[in-house]
Amino acid sequence: MPRAPACGVDHKGMNPLRLAVLGSTGSIGRQTLEVIRSLGERFRVVGLAGGRNVTLLEEQVREFAPDLVWSDDEARRSTLTAASRSPKARWTAMTEMAVDPDVDLVVIGTVGRAGLEPTLAALRAGKVVALANKEVLVMAGPVVMEAAAEGGGELRPIDSEHSAIWQCLWGEDCQGIRRIILTGSGGAFRDRPLEELAKVTPEEALRHPVWQMGRKITVDSATLINKGFEAIEARWLFDVPFERIDIVMHPESVIHSLVEFTDGCLKAQMGPPDMRLPIQCALCYPERVALSAAPRLDLALLGTLHFAPPDLRRYPCLGLALDAGHRGGTYPAVLAAADEVAVEHFLGGHIGFMDIPAALEDALSAHRGTADASLEAVLAADAWARRRADEWVKARV
Amino acid sequence: MPRAPACGVDHKGMNPLRLAVLGSTGSIGRQTLEVIRSLGERFRVVGLAGGRNVTLLEEQVREFAPDLVWSDDEARRSTLTAASRSPKARWTAMTEMAVDPDVDLVVIGTVGRAGLEPTLAALRAGKVVALANKEVLVMAGPVVMEAAAEGGGELRPIDSEHSAIWQCLWGEDCQGIRRIILTGSGGAFRDRPLEELAKVTPEEALRHPVWQMGRKITVDSATLINKGFEAIEARWLFDVPFERIDIVMHPESVIHSLVEFTDGCLKAQMGPPDMRLPIQCALCYPERVALSAAPRLDLALLGTLHFAPPDLRRYPCLGLALDAGHRGGTYPAVLAAADEVAVEHFLGGHIGFMDIPAALEDALSAHRGTADASLEAVLAADAWARRRADEWVKARV
Repeated sequence: MPRAPACGVDHKGMNPLRLAVLGSTGSIGRQTLEVIRSLGERFRVVGLAGGRNVTLLEEQVREFAPDLVWSDDEARRSTLTAASRSPKARWTAMTEMAVDPDVDLVVIGTVGRAGLEPTLAALRAGKVVALANKEVLVMAGPVVMEAAAEGGGELRPIDSEHSAIWQCLWGEDCQGIRRIILTGSGGAFRDRPLEELAKVTPEEALRHPVWQMGRKITVDSATLINKGFEAIEARWLFDVPFERIDIVMHPESVIHSLVEFTDGCLKAQMGPPDMRLPIQCALCYPERVALSAAPRLDLALLGTLHFAPPDLRRYPCLGLALDAGHRGGTYPAVLAAADEVAVEHFLGGHIGFMDIPAALEDALSAHRGTADASLEAVLAADAWARRRADEWVKARV
Repeated sequence: MPRAPACGVDHKGMNPLRLAVLGSTGSIGRQTLEVIRSLGERFRVVGLAGGRNVTLLEEQVREFAPDLVWSDDEARRSTLTAASRSPKARWTAMTEMAVDPDVDLVVIGTVGRAGLEPTLAALRAGKVVALANKEVLVMAGPVVMEAAAEGGGELRPIDSEHSAIWQCLWGEDCQGIRRIILTGSGGAFRDRPLEELAKVTPEEALRHPVWQMGRKITVDSATLINKGFEAIEARWLFDVPFERIDIVMHPESVIHSLVEFTDGCLKAQMGPPDMRLPIQCALCYPERVALSAAPRLDLALLGTLHFAPPDLRRYPCLGLALDAGHRGGTYPAVLAAADEVAVEHFLGGHIGFMDIPAALEDALSAHRGTADASLEAVLAADAWARRRADEWVKARV
């Protein structure tokens, strides 16, 4: 992937790149549309799919006039399609939207397993997929990479860590990778005394020290399970054995991640913590386009950068995630599904913060995984883990 | 340069890349030969040119059996050529060696202005030039880049900072550069009270806190004039306006330099302070080859990295160098020549450490430069500045 040439569409030519944005009302979706506004003529939004925030989706549809529209709220179908100025506007499910012949690039800005089928479909149809939905590769890494290989689709990461690694690999050969080093800020509770962690509230967990992100992912940062997810994703995205992926705590979040090469050289990608940067990279690759009003990074002003190994007592979810990553097969899917359920219950006030790792541990230890990581096996494991985690929570409450 | 494909020679094919190492007995030359020993069959040393350390040169000639041999010490001509096991061994001046049809890649490991003519000749002859000799681009940047463009020669930096920038630009377009950020350790006297600087000895100046390098360059690190040289070099190597090059102090010398792109992203190249890494990069580009026994960099173990703006009161030579860089024309040549003379006198015990900037300031302010930076103008300015600096020292002693 890193050495791939530009996608087939000519940014500078007559034809703008045609985008579908799945999850357009979420954090990544909104920032994607912001980037597209700033980039002007080179992109055209032809598809918008949102979740339950129908008011915002209607505004977006009004602004971008897409041909393809979709929302979780089927009842608003006619209102939403009518909002588009496009005469061709039609209601189109996400997976259908992802393979539409008028779509060149699909932004997967959904959360949880919702992005899996559209990603697979888009890659099999040879589309460029800009992927922000972590769980897609965590659940079904081998299936996703196979879909890309079969269909000629191209996967570009939007996550800041994977975008960093991807950028470090431009002009390099993946064969030259010795180690991938993922950095993590440590999330909302990095400095909280360990004994207080059981009592923290959802509101506190949602206060990330550095990044503005969606709710689920902000809690995943607080448990540090997100670094485990990212390690599993990186393993597939960059075709690197899992044991060659390291995690280092870096509270300033200025170095977004690093690659160490076989000769001992390292490359790091750095920047202000602004998701618009990796989004724009994924949309414009291989071109660098000036991002207006982008905050600048001044090392001399920052003065100091810190690094430390992760503390697994503080972050038991990370240990569970790394273990699931090592085991492979359906274990990562169980991890991701149980986490989705547990975090939802935590945000709903049903369980405590330290119940999240307990729910995951229950599901992972009860799971009888196979080396088979086919889509069917993964979906079955996903459904099983959701039930299991839900039952665990209900037994607890 | 950064997007250039591999050099014409097939590393993996039947023919080893044929090298001439100019300055083979110096610090860069010795480390180049060490790298070549570890790389085995893929390189063949066909030329060795040394300075006054004839004993070491004779050992090198004995080991590598080059066809082309040269030394400053003409009297040892027959001994040295006889030392080579090559039946074709012949005495060959550096500039002649650099253009020999049997040479593919020339390592310019000389110091001062000695590397200028061989570099120009090699580039005009379409060779790959791995350049460690800072003064070449400082003195005659436009002439050197023009020679490369005319002859189809390829310039690869060996200096750790420029190698870092070069590596950050692999797979990128130079058009995307917003800023180049050179890092500097601060040299031997970074923590010395300012009022003591006038009294420091050559022995103290030669104790660099991080890098093992040659004598001249170690003193240049202590005065920080080396960062000014590097800024001037970077300006030409990467075709970036001088005002877009920044300098940041970074005492750990772990980040070797950075590039900021127009979209706000930065890339940094990092690694242990080991000159064998940039040397190997320049020899093997675009391949990464495992460097046996290379020290590893562990960020979590390092813990902290520091950055600060340079203090021009501590480092008056840096201010003079940046000023000469801004003025352009023949001023950088005057800077480099006066520095070569002044450092030699400092190492000889004839002047004090803070006399170095005084000697440079005298030459730079007396110089009547022109915008003309032709080779003739540069060589004339060089000769004038050497005389001027020498006279300044003699008047002082």
